[in-house]
Amino acid sequence: MRVARVSKDGRIGVAVSTAEGVRAVFGDAGVTDLDALIAGGVGLAIAAKAAAAGEAVDEADLTFLPPLVKAPKIVCLGLNYKDHAAEGGFQVPEFPTIFGRFNSSLIGHGAPIIKPTVSDQLDYEGELIAVIGTGGKDIAEDKALDHVAAYSVFNDGSVRDYQMKTPQWTVGKNFDDTGAFGPWLVTPDELPAGAAGLKIETRLNGQVVQSASTSDMVFDVPTTIALLSTFMTLEAGDVLVMGTPSGIGLARKPPLFMKDGDTVEVEIERVGLLVNPIRAA
Amino acid sequence: MRVARVSKDGRIGVAVSTAEGVRAVFGDAGVTDLDALIAGGVGLAIAAKAAAAGEAVDEADLTFLPPLVKAPKIVCLGLNYKDHAAEGGFQVPEFPTIFGRFNSSLIGHGAPIIKPTVSDQLDYEGELIAVIGTGGKDIAEDKALDHVAAYSVFNDGSVRDYQMKTPQWTVGKNFDDTGAFGPWLVTPDELPAGAAGLKIETRLNGQVVQSASTSDMVFDVPTTIALLSTFMTLEAGDVLVMGTPSGIGLARKPPLFMKDGDTVEVEIERVGLLVNPIRAA
Repeated sequence: MRVARVSKDGRIGVAVSTAEGVRAVFGDAGVTDLDALIAGGVGLAIAAKAAAAGEAVDEADLTFLPPLVKAPKIVCLGLNYKDHAAEGGFQVPEFPTIFGRFNSSLIGHGAPIIKPTVSDQLDYEGELIAVIGTGGKDIAEDKALDHVAAYSVFNDGSVRDYQMKTPQWTVGKNFDDTGAFGPWLVTPDELPAGAAGLKIETRLNGQVVQSASTSDMVFDVPTTIALLSTFMTLEAGDVLVMGTPSGIGLARKPPLFMKDGDTVEVEIERVGLLVNPIRAA
Repeated sequence: MRVARVSKDGRIGVAVSTAEGVRAVFGDAGVTDLDALIAGGVGLAIAAKAAAAGEAVDEADLTFLPPLVKAPKIVCLGLNYKDHAAEGGFQVPEFPTIFGRFNSSLIGHGAPIIKPTVSDQLDYEGELIAVIGTGGKDIAEDKALDHVAAYSVFNDGSVRDYQMKTPQWTVGKNFDDTGAFGPWLVTPDELPAGAAGLKIETRLNGQVVQSASTSDMVFDVPTTIALLSTFMTLEAGDVLVMGTPSGIGLARKPPLFMKDGDTVEVEIERVGLLVNPIRAA
């Protein structure tokens, strides 16, 4: 299943994408609140079924919302591709490097990523998302993928000077309107185990700036779930943002930052294409 | 008002503390869900009023729960007391050093802080909490205190080897059962503006290990609210954890870490006394 949270003519809805096209249902909070469905253990099937019974829609007429906006945790992995760790001058980590995003920074597919007035260093980071469907503590690695409800695409928009201003990256990772998420939540049955072996590519104004395979991750999805759950309880609805490959704008010579009028795309094979314009605040 | 979320005989309740003693009401989710009251803009008065009309209770018979467990954001300030930044070898920051805690790490007053099996470096950090009552963006510093719903006490229990294992502190700050919060949410009218000028003290097994004034903070509460809101929208129910003074166990020679059987107390004058035993996992 490929399920999205959308709006059209001011009504919140849920859409499902199949080979026959996109269908959607609007206004029924019982199926459009994907956070509540996942947190409640119901999963996405009820939303997909309701959407499939809804109206046929043209994807171009939909506004895509971030699929989830009340994640108990948004756990972001840094330095999780060897080449990216190297380009930043970091060692490949022995343990996942984690920082937190807050839900307040999220936007959907198609919404503008906002370049703040205080910085000219707005950078892209294409990433895979794994959403936890079943929580737990001390989850065994060989059972970890049973805990995933869905995968998606993320652009971990980063304000580099603020990220590096202090010893912790959190500020530069949490500007409003910088975390693009979607368009679709894709259930694991649609993808290879752990969403491994998929091409992940970021394009800025059509130019390929990041290109890698999700198999290049240092800590893959099952390993990450197992390691995180050694120290903290994972909860249904937690969002794991799996890190970015090399090619970020900060590491380029000269640096390449995003500016008003640009368009950034992150595409993960079989997971989706996330497109966002850049707008000045 | 001094309001706490509590349980007794398996029932969740809300308690209010006054000069006449403690009263509480149980089982009414409309007044015991302090997260929902604050997020909904209702504030604590309705909970305090309901508790005041409830039964007289002995504080010793209550189990204190973390006052809030669904904070949209738990924003923690690092290096926010000059002496503490210096003891860690850090510069006093020009901008708040921020890391995130997740709600999954929270426990209440009286609950054990758990020393994990994987580490012997469990450390204390006594801190002031400010809870946002009215959200906003670009909040002016001279209006910032109008956005505070309550203050409280926090012990930012830190697993130091995991905190330092990677470039980001998040893991060491998010072990389950390490973030002690409470006992009371105290409304601003009970305290000096910004909870400034209050003695903050941490004691381990009765020995004073941290002692400072909340006025020693580098970024005080209104400055922090104003600065945070320059880049991200603050929301009702967000929890700001305002940093710890010098005296942490890691910086001592020899280091002083918490172990099974210890008792740690954080006391902030007029805000409250937070006591937690330490238990091995």
